[in-house]
Amino acid sequence: MSSSRPTVSSPSIQQTRSIVRLPSSRPAARSIAAKYRCLPSDFFVRSISGQAPAHQKSWLLSFVYNAAAWLGISVSFVAAGIVGFFIYDASTYKEHSTQSDMDVSQLALQPRRGGPKNLPIAEIFLDDGDNEAKKETIDKPRLVILGGGWGGVAMLKELNPEDYHVTVISPTNYFLFTPMLPSATVGTLEMRSLVEPIRRILSRVNGHFIRAKAEDVEFSHKLVEVSQFDARGEEVRFYVPYDKLVIAVGSSTNPHGVKGLENAFFLKDINDARKIRNQVIQNFEVACLPTTTNEERKRLLSFVISGGGPTGVEFAAELYDLLNEDLTKHFPKLLRNEISVHLIQSRSHILNTYDETVSKYAEDRFARDQVEVLTNSRVKEVQKEKIIFTQKLEDGTIVDKELPLGFCLWSTGVSPTAFSKKLAERLGKSQTNRHALETDTHLRLNGTPLGDVYAIGDCSTVQNNVADYIVTFLRNLAYKRGTDPEKMHLSFSDWRHVAVDIKKRYPQAIHHLKRLDKLFAEFDKDNSGTLDFKELKALLCQIDNKLTSLPATAQRAHQQGQYLAHKFNKMAKLSDGLQLNEVREGDTDAAFYRAFEYRHLGSLAYIGNSAVFDLGEGRSFAGGLWAVYAWRSVYFAQSVSFRTRLLMAMDWAKRGLFGRDLMSF
Amino acid sequence: MSSSRPTVSSPSIQQTRSIVRLPSSRPAARSIAAKYRCLPSDFFVRSISGQAPAHQKSWLLSFVYNAAAWLGISVSFVAAGIVGFFIYDASTYKEHSTQSDMDVSQLALQPRRGGPKNLPIAEIFLDDGDNEAKKETIDKPRLVILGGGWGGVAMLKELNPEDYHVTVISPTNYFLFTPMLPSATVGTLEMRSLVEPIRRILSRVNGHFIRAKAEDVEFSHKLVEVSQFDARGEEVRFYVPYDKLVIAVGSSTNPHGVKGLENAFFLKDINDARKIRNQVIQNFEVACLPTTTNEERKRLLSFVISGGGPTGVEFAAELYDLLNEDLTKHFPKLLRNEISVHLIQSRSHILNTYDETVSKYAEDRFARDQVEVLTNSRVKEVQKEKIIFTQKLEDGTIVDKELPLGFCLWSTGVSPTAFSKKLAERLGKSQTNRHALETDTHLRLNGTPLGDVYAIGDCSTVQNNVADYIVTFLRNLAYKRGTDPEKMHLSFSDWRHVAVDIKKRYPQAIHHLKRLDKLFAEFDKDNSGTLDFKELKALLCQIDNKLTSLPATAQRAHQQGQYLAHKFNKMAKLSDGLQLNEVREGDTDAAFYRAFEYRHLGSLAYIGNSAVFDLGEGRSFAGGLWAVYAWRSVYFAQSVSFRTRLLMAMDWAKRGLFGRDLMSF
Repeated sequence: MSSSRPTVSSPSIQQTRSIVRLPSSRPAARSIAAKYRCLPSDFFVRSISGQAPAHQKSWLLSFVYNAAAWLGISVSFVAAGIVGFFIYDASTYKEHSTQSDMDVSQLALQPRRGGPKNLPIAEIFLDDGDNEAKKETIDKPRLVILGGGWGGVAMLKELNPEDYHVTVISPTNYFLFTPMLPSATVGTLEMRSLVEPIRRILSRVNGHFIRAKAEDVEFSHKLVEVSQFDARGEEVRFYVPYDKLVIAVGSSTNPHGVKGLENAFFLKDINDARKIRNQVIQNFEVACLPTTTNEERKRLLSFVISGGGPTGVEFAAELYDLLNEDLTKHFPKLLRNEISVHLIQSRSHILNTYDETVSKYAEDRFARDQVEVLTNSRVKEVQKEKIIFTQKLEDGTIVDKELPLGFCLWSTGVSPTAFSKKLAERLGKSQTNRHALETDTHLRLNGTPLGDVYAIGDCSTVQNNVADYIVTFLRNLAYKRGTDPEKMHLSFSDWRHVAVDIKKRYPQAIHHLKRLDKLFAEFDKDNSGTLDFKELKALLCQIDNKLTSLPATAQRAHQQGQYLAHKFNKMAKLSDGLQLNEVREGDTDAAFYRAFEYRHLGSLAYIGNSAVFDLGEGRSFAGGLWAVYAWRSVYFAQSVSFRTRLLMAMDWAKRGLFGRDLMSF
Repeated sequence: MSSSRPTVSSPSIQQTRSIVRLPSSRPAARSIAAKYRCLPSDFFVRSISGQAPAHQKSWLLSFVYNAAAWLGISVSFVAAGIVGFFIYDASTYKEHSTQSDMDVSQLALQPRRGGPKNLPIAEIFLDDGDNEAKKETIDKPRLVILGGGWGGVAMLKELNPEDYHVTVISPTNYFLFTPMLPSATVGTLEMRSLVEPIRRILSRVNGHFIRAKAEDVEFSHKLVEVSQFDARGEEVRFYVPYDKLVIAVGSSTNPHGVKGLENAFFLKDINDARKIRNQVIQNFEVACLPTTTNEERKRLLSFVISGGGPTGVEFAAELYDLLNEDLTKHFPKLLRNEISVHLIQSRSHILNTYDETVSKYAEDRFARDQVEVLTNSRVKEVQKEKIIFTQKLEDGTIVDKELPLGFCLWSTGVSPTAFSKKLAERLGKSQTNRHALETDTHLRLNGTPLGDVYAIGDCSTVQNNVADYIVTFLRNLAYKRGTDPEKMHLSFSDWRHVAVDIKKRYPQAIHHLKRLDKLFAEFDKDNSGTLDFKELKALLCQIDNKLTSLPATAQRAHQQGQYLAHKFNKMAKLSDGLQLNEVREGDTDAAFYRAFEYRHLGSLAYIGNSAVFDLGEGRSFAGGLWAVYAWRSVYFAQSVSFRTRLLMAMDWAKRGLFGRDLMSF
């Protein structure tokens, strides 16, 4: 088989080598000469060894030669990449000043006043004329998005760039990747890896950003009232006009009427994460002091998490990782022994919105990790040095309990922001939900002019009261037949007709309208072969009961943002036709686009060197390290930009190489 | 030349190839078969092309084949590297709890009280028994270092691990790489890339860390009094005993008695950098609001830096980079046009401690970049909305001036901390310098028992009053001759003897004692061939005047820390011998180790896409981007750990790829 290894054993190569070797006696010159005579690996092998490569018998030597060649080539390519990067990097420094002559509209510099409160109205912005793309959007419908969270950003990422004059108003100038926030509290990820400047996201749609807080909306004047502190620290207010308004302001933490929450930490934004990080480390530092008593040390190291949802569970898991993997490397080992972590949950299981096997897995995991899970427990008061709660025992008796407290995280669901409450109040009767702003299934805010105002994400809820619309369904039928809707009898084909209408209007109801014949038979109590008004109402009420409200998750906000963007893109495309036909008002949303339908893609949670996945419909799985990598991959893919992905990858690598930093500043 | 390309043109290879091709018709199988028969590049070439490589005539095609092969191999190696990293990463997660049984000394849990104030004394620490290495140091001399800056950390990095029981006391639990701090104010570097946990640095010497503030030292009891806030926010105080104490507490910013500094920002620690970053961005945000008037906008965008030293200059440069490279990408272009940057310097040049050509280069650069440099100017008052200063014009007249103020950085030199002042007061007459703690040339704090207390870095100054030691020098000579020191006449050989003594005691004087004969002749006013007391004193006073005090730089602190570490290492080695000979007191420092000598290695500064280097003795250079890379390389090499180096490199790459983040939180 000597012929099967041509480059190492063929006679002609041997001959070549001797030709090469003869004219030059120094190895360097020989290798340079060889460079032009053979393929790369061969060249490398010889320049390293200075001898003819081994024959087939010494396969080990040959393997070493080959490996060395491969490595050498790889190193060269990496080096070339680094040099290339430096050349690119050098091109990113601007030598000359970027000042330029420009015209700015007088109306942008000195806005006119108006509206119910006679405030300045921001009709033209300072950067409206900054480039051609921005100039082109000046006359487009003004789309104002309140909030730069999941809903708003999902919308920005799908919106066509030229169709609207887009403005985002938010008190924070970054988008926060909330699902990974628990990781930032202990330094598994850095804060900066979870945020992306809104302006960078906005640049795709040539949009504008105002860092301010939405205070109120004048629906009839189409003006948003916003507030901000000026350079002197005084509050200034002004109006931002809109043609279409999207309310995506999110939610605040639910205090559940508990006393002493000023002693607890929350986990809603990036500053919360930093505060938690500093407090946890400060507790360790104080626990090390020689003046700290044993009892005090145990109290300082008693970490209590109130709320067994994903945020609470993931924080407990990340905290446990920190304690277990990094704390004892540099802090006294005594601390590790005196630490206790407690998770207080009001329901009978943690992760109660997840599949039961997933909840069970998480509880077992925590039991093994010595994280105490206290279910059926309700916090009564958070004091400076202890937390007081009641627990319902298995026999139904309720007992008072308390725990010493060094740190308390409060993560027990959401409640509406002050702005949402004000809008609900302003809209009166058309808003009946205490917990969120109600929209129809086209995500239009109930009580506002059709097609003006939309609400998405945590601040909103989609009203699914199918039964209330019974009269509307029946009126169409009754009109054709000239009878009173309430006295009509629906045949099975009428019912099928109504069902199609319901499915279109309430996509969430589709799952409950699968067996129309069975439903018809079930609710036709008198077996008349028709449904009368009462029977139909009973049927629709049962569907209503089965429809749950949508979860307050990033996933829902994301889907709603995408839905609105796609709808707005389509409406912009059709608007020329509408203007030609002089159609200016009316239910264009329902005419042009489907109703919003939420598709649950699954939930996942990190629970300390393992992760759980609930894919819906009973499919779920949980596992160790491989699941953690899968969990990271999901979020890596969902992350908002290439920048955040790269930073997250770097952070994970950093954790592996150096552990978490136990520094506070 | 066909024989010079053996692997592509030798007949035997052609033949081999046909052998390979014949038995298998599918390319995949063929390439696998080929794998075992040829060298890697050859294999790749063929597996990609599926054909025989080109003959020598089509060298371009051959080149493409080779390049593809190299790339393929490189990618494989990189992929192998990534897989390898994942395998390593997976090994870093701890599955099982790290709790363990342990004994902790009762004295660590309940320290006894004592000392002048009857405070708890931390004689044994909680982690003294955590591992074998720590247990071994319990009986070693207790070395306490106050401060975790350049001086302290340089010492920790050079100290032998087993010789001392090391404790660092500092209010911050990280070391800060101060020279790069201006880069962190605008996001060129991240804060975390500039800091390293002190505990991680301490682990090499099996040391201990107490996060607390040094308040006082009881020199006769060898106790440091420290304070910290306990878990309830109340101040607690305790003593830490020492055998050797190193004071390296650094300095605070010099207010120069100027009013209104509460309106200015400082740049001493990492929190300052964050505050500056947030304020700069907040000014941009407010400048964008429609309610902000033109005049107000210009004020908000007027950035004033007071102090033309390296910190002020580098901050101005970094700010300019931010404005020029990143601001207009996402903020209205109008802002860029209305921004002004002003640098107020009390001397006639910026960077006045540097070589003159370097100062000139920096000034020219700033002039081009529209950074206004106001020399010979002294700030009188910083008000909320303006800064008031006086400027001395070229004709000597002094005029009052003012500038509108949106942001003010105060970086005008150093002054002693409250702790340093208290110690100086306590030591009374032996401390005469108002600006720093005085040490002798062995860095021992003047006025304290020899060999107990040392001071290094910005908080200290080395006393170089050669003339004051004249009597000491002469006493030795006079003693031998039995005369009065003040009436002695020194011959040239006596003078040489004295000069050797001076050089040993004051290494900084070496440069001024090079031509002994010339000096002798110059000061022998009466040409008597001898120096009398008055003449010698005049000579030494001239040397004194030439000796400048050491600069308050990282470089000096670093060298002093290293010096102490080397000395302590040597003293630990010699201590056994000392104990045998029952030598317990005395001037062991001077007997065993040379005096401290500062070697100036040069200064450098970043001045906006260019950098300047002053290598001392008139050697200096300045340049554009290549100098910036050189400047970075110097700091990259000096950085404290592999971790910070990697993070810095990542940050620089991040800036190149994505620019600076304009987010505040």
